[in-house]
Amino acid sequence: MVKVGIVGGTGYTGVELLRLLAAHPQVEIEAITSRSENGMPVADMFPNLRGQLDIAFSEPNMDVLKKCDVVFFATPNGIAMTMARELIEAGVRVIDLAADFRIKDVAEWSKWYGMEHACPDLVAEAVYGLPEINREAVKNARLIANPGCYPTAVQLGLLPLLENGLVETDQLIADAKSGVSGAGRGAAVPTLQAESSENFKAYAVAGHRHLPEIRQGLALASQAEVGLTFVPHLVPMIRGIHATCYARLKDNSVDLQALYEKRYADEYFVDVMPAGSFPETRTVKGANHCRIAIYVPQDGNTVVILSVIDNLVKGAAGQAVQNMNIMCGLEETAGLTAIALVP
Amino acid sequence: MVKVGIVGGTGYTGVELLRLLAAHPQVEIEAITSRSENGMPVADMFPNLRGQLDIAFSEPNMDVLKKCDVVFFATPNGIAMTMARELIEAGVRVIDLAADFRIKDVAEWSKWYGMEHACPDLVAEAVYGLPEINREAVKNARLIANPGCYPTAVQLGLLPLLENGLVETDQLIADAKSGVSGAGRGAAVPTLQAESSENFKAYAVAGHRHLPEIRQGLALASQAEVGLTFVPHLVPMIRGIHATCYARLKDNSVDLQALYEKRYADEYFVDVMPAGSFPETRTVKGANHCRIAIYVPQDGNTVVILSVIDNLVKGAAGQAVQNMNIMCGLEETAGLTAIALVP
Amino acid sequence: MVKVGIVGGTGYTGVELLRLLAAHPQVEIEAITSRSENGMPVADMFPNLRGQLDIAFSEPNMDVLKKCDVVFFATPNGIAMTMARELIEAGVRVIDLAADFRIKDVAEWSKWYGMEHACPDLVAEAVYGLPEINREAVKNARLIANPGCYPTAVQLGLLPLLENGLVETDQLIADAKSGVSGAGRGAAVPTLQAESSENFKAYAVAGHRHLPEIRQGLALASQAEVGLTFVPHLVPMIRGIHATCYARLKDNSVDLQALYEKRYADEYFVDVMPAGSFPETRTVKGANHCRIAIYVPQDGNTVVILSVIDNLVKGAAGQAVQNMNIMCGLEETAGLTAIALVP
Amino acid sequence: MVKVGIVGGTGYTGVELLRLLAAHPQVEIEAITSRSENGMPVADMFPNLRGQLDIAFSEPNMDVLKKCDVVFFATPNGIAMTMARELIEAGVRVIDLAADFRIKDVAEWSKWYGMEHACPDLVAEAVYGLPEINREAVKNARLIANPGCYPTAVQLGLLPLLENGLVETDQLIADAKSGVSGAGRGAAVPTLQAESSENFKAYAVAGHRHLPEIRQGLALASQAEVGLTFVPHLVPMIRGIHATCYARLKDNSVDLQALYEKRYADEYFVDVMPAGSFPETRTVKGANHCRIAIYVPQDGNTVVILSVIDNLVKGAAGQAVQNMNIMCGLEETAGLTAIALVP
Repeated sequence: MVKVGIVGGTGYTGVELLRLLAAHPQVEIEAITSRSENGMPVADMFPNLRGQLDIAFSEPNMDVLKKCDVVFFATPNGIAMTMARELIEAGVRVIDLAADFRIKDVAEWSKWYGMEHACPDLVAEAVYGLPEINREAVKNARLIANPGCYPTAVQLGLLPLLENGLVETDQLIADAKSGVSGAGRGAAVPTLQAESSENFKAYAVAGHRHLPEIRQGLALASQAEVGLTFVPHLVPMIRGIHATCYARLKDNSVDLQALYEKRYADEYFVDVMPAGSFPETRTVKGANHCRIAIYVPQDGNTVVILSVIDNLVKGAAGQAVQNMNIMCGLEETAGLTAIALVP
Repeated sequence: MVKVGIVGGTGYTGVELLRLLAAHPQVEIEAITSRSENGMPVADMFPNLRGQLDIAFSEPNMDVLKKCDVVFFATPNGIAMTMARELIEAGVRVIDLAADFRIKDVAEWSKWYGMEHACPDLVAEAVYGLPEINREAVKNARLIANPGCYPTAVQLGLLPLLENGLVETDQLIADAKSGVSGAGRGAAVPTLQAESSENFKAYAVAGHRHLPEIRQGLALASQAEVGLTFVPHLVPMIRGIHATCYARLKDNSVDLQALYEKRYADEYFVDVMPAGSFPETRTVKGANHCRIAIYVPQDGNTVVILSVIDNLVKGAAGQAVQNMNIMCGLEETAGLTAIALVP
Repeated sequence: MVKVGIVGGTGYTGVELLRLLAAHPQVEIEAITSRSENGMPVADMFPNLRGQLDIAFSEPNMDVLKKCDVVFFATPNGIAMTMARELIEAGVRVIDLAADFRIKDVAEWSKWYGMEHACPDLVAEAVYGLPEINREAVKNARLIANPGCYPTAVQLGLLPLLENGLVETDQLIADAKSGVSGAGRGAAVPTLQAESSENFKAYAVAGHRHLPEIRQGLALASQAEVGLTFVPHLVPMIRGIHATCYARLKDNSVDLQALYEKRYADEYFVDVMPAGSFPETRTVKGANHCRIAIYVPQDGNTVVILSVIDNLVKGAAGQAVQNMNIMCGLEETAGLTAIALVP
Repeated sequence: MVKVGIVGGTGYTGVELLRLLAAHPQVEIEAITSRSENGMPVADMFPNLRGQLDIAFSEPNMDVLKKCDVVFFATPNGIAMTMARELIEAGVRVIDLAADFRIKDVAEWSKWYGMEHACPDLVAEAVYGLPEINREAVKNARLIANPGCYPTAVQLGLLPLLENGLVETDQLIADAKSGVSGAGRGAAVPTLQAESSENFKAYAVAGHRHLPEIRQGLALASQAEVGLTFVPHLVPMIRGIHATCYARLKDNSVDLQALYEKRYADEYFVDVMPAGSFPETRTVKGANHCRIAIYVPQDGNTVVILSVIDNLVKGAAGQAVQNMNIMCGLEETAGLTAIALVP
């Protein structure tokens, strides 16, 4: 059994980790921490766990966490970087679901996240935990930067094009749409149901923190700088991300459907749908899958990629568990085979 | 492995059976039938099953069905009664998720369902599959009448009061609210999202088919006729039933909280919540649990019971699987331990 | 032109007053106050008003408010009672949309609202602004206690029964359901879309502040104490209240449909629907109407009344404007004839 | 008073026309036709109209329609073209809310709409009813082709760029999102609430009927062929369209904010929001406004235009009434000044 700890368990990524880990056949949850809710049984805050997970929130305690094999950080940005070194040095493997270790350019990170980085050397060491590109590195990683939700959907959608040099890289567009759980569990007026339901809007058009993360991943894949316009939108639903990506083909004679199917043939969690399909976010609700469809409308030179994930699963907690499975030598799909809830 | 067949798999109870049975560790799905979709892979209709269930809809074929251990009917009312006898006589155990075998009074059944019954003798034999009252009978049943969704929520809520003779039985009220999946997957104007969302209404106030079913169950529990007013409402959400039940206490000195906790102490799927709780339908979304809370407002003589289930799980497919588990000597909870998706 | 002021304009009842009053042909909005948003154009907070209402929030200023003919309080409970006397003595007529003047029994009010009352004499003078029972008194009132949302829906539903002594008054039940805008515009976790959508729950079952208000109104109508069980629920939609009311008939031979039609024949805003109808909340979305249907299921002795309003219109701002119209000698329907938005 | 007739009144554009015209101070509704609902009072189908519009559906009758000043067609595609000539020759002015007269290239129209055109000469005469570009022509038109919903949002968003030759016209992208009322009021599985809510998907990516209409309008504005990729998506809400448009700037030194403000300075229904704003669809819910914001992220060479409308108002019935007002010499805003319902 893998012993795990969760730091910061009261947000949506925290409770989603609990849901997945409580049902994972090879995991024992040793601790879930929350300063504010110390002592409260998790099932009191999340009654869906009643009778299925008997553990209480506790103060973060390094002695306890050091006895874990893996510690997940489901904390706000800026927390994991202050605790990761001590855990790693104690032999604990760390998976950060926040953004502390995602951007290799520390100055760029500081610009977008508004703080100094506490451990630039660990940024250099951290493995970006998108298994579909970094599986080997994940296996032996001490520290995983678990990707952001939008970056997961957009990168899985665009990577095959960029890895094969098929599109102009200076004018990529990612028009992305997310359910409201992406905004987190904090009390806020804009995500009250009376405000965000029956409504659709873009936000952070001038610049969103996931932009540099996506740009970094796409540049690595294409081995060149990329020009990316990324526009996120808020969808009046709880879970799901739909990325609609546009790129200009250098050559429209390539069989992109075949290319994508081959690229992801061995990836359990990436489903290249048949030509003509429309991936629906609900088909991955609660599941760790990414579903993708490829279009070249009117046989022109613009390729359109549709890519959907559950922002809390493949976009956060599920991907973190996938990384844990790889790191610990378990089946990569362990605990991650639940079928999406439809309807 | 238990070999199962599903007759009528294109509705919501059918796909929910598929979701549950595909993940059940001791079940093999032998056939899922649909005349209209014969030959279509189920994953083409329900892409959430892509990569996780490799079976196609087939014409109903008695030879195939007779090789199953258990056959589920997820058909419209009036179908199971025409096929059940042949299957039972072939040694197959039958679970009908429709209403054909729920009402013991066949004349009453005909009045509410508008057709003659094809096999009254099987009605007499059929076991009403609410395990919390009929577990022993379910074990050896050849034919299970799987309860309706409203009847499950209302009966689990009221049974302890009636079994103990604590309330006046002539003026019971069940004000029940259901998500729109209860209306089924048929194309219809009233359940278009543009019609049913952002809206709340009652329906069938003059008389709903679940009224005689609930009345029958409550009468059995109280060993007397009961007077019941049952008002169903449509809630703008996909899944979930919330029954708010009102009854007049004969004596308000009984500790109802303790009584309920004791009644359901050994029931894995019935959760009597702590005093002062408000059961939320989302805490059972996709799960087979029923959560209940008990109130006596202002210490008066009216008791208020709040009871929530997922109409497609404990109210249909989940309860059917629970019955199958009991019938086949499996763990009653096998395949039914998934945690509700929150948020 | 009637000069009006609004104290506390940043909540949902405030912006709804703005929407209605900006379109009212005989009203001029002199001031809308908000300490926190002093100086901000209202259209910056509520962009639906862009180009249609050119006014900014201002500090509450008694000199300005005293020049108004009517001042509305769309403030939290406990504010209007500290400012009403000075305005009234200056000849301004006051309409309080909060609860300060609704309960005649000041001790009872203090118990439910948790504060001492600042002006019990004004409570005695205040007219409860439900025009359908108090129209004459409203005409000359200096101070209106605008009814609560649930109390409006429940009272309009039950009044004809109680005024005519047709039901047992010791066991009335009001099972009421409200959209989330009823919880207000304050940041709060329970009404985040990710928490309250796709969910249904009861709340405040042990006792809600609207209970004594409803009880007071029903007692007046029946000229006797009443026993009322009131259970509010939260519906995953923005606007609307549906009250399902249950009472025990003394005599089930009365033609209730005719009785209701006669009672409300002259009431523009109360629509007694044809027998067999199901009032839908969306048919009053944004409108000041209450729609009612009457049932006696199975010709028994339980009468079921269905009553729907828009909680922000007939349940708050619309009723306040209706009261203003009556007080100022305008057409009672002025500014209140917009048709509900369907779909 | 303008006498109007509505042919085909049972869909969403029909009932929206009713809502707007019933409240229009200078309009009399002479007839609303529906073969299937002949004789049914409109308020029986749409109870929001109860007490506010006393008219019944009638068989289409040319004698009655010919007495109207204006006849609206809220019919499926292919109906108006069979009736328009007779009405026009009788002196009636016709506004078609369907697509019969929108595409000037009749062969192109036939390709997308799958039928022969009944009156190509009238296509040539018809005025494309987007007042913001065709106001003068609308004034004297006998026949108006009322624009589609997506085309209205996209064209109003992109026109100022194209009219001024500021962007490359060979790679325009319109990523558009629509509420479910855009799919109409017909019974259909994909828009059942249980299917379309809590879900987001693209559709018709290979080619949507609004593509040639948008392309025609943009080509006219830019006086050159344009290359357009148009991807529509379905949003889980009732009303609203959000178009996110991308274009490559030839020169990023132009003050686009000022350009847009000047272009639309005299347009009551087009609101260019302040720089940095995010137009929300709910701010135009039920209103005839289009709200627009302009971004050039990271000061690059991609311009992003956000444009929102209510698909049933500015995208259909509201724009039709706006056209009628212009044709009949009324105030262009008559009957169209209602404030959007927020929340």
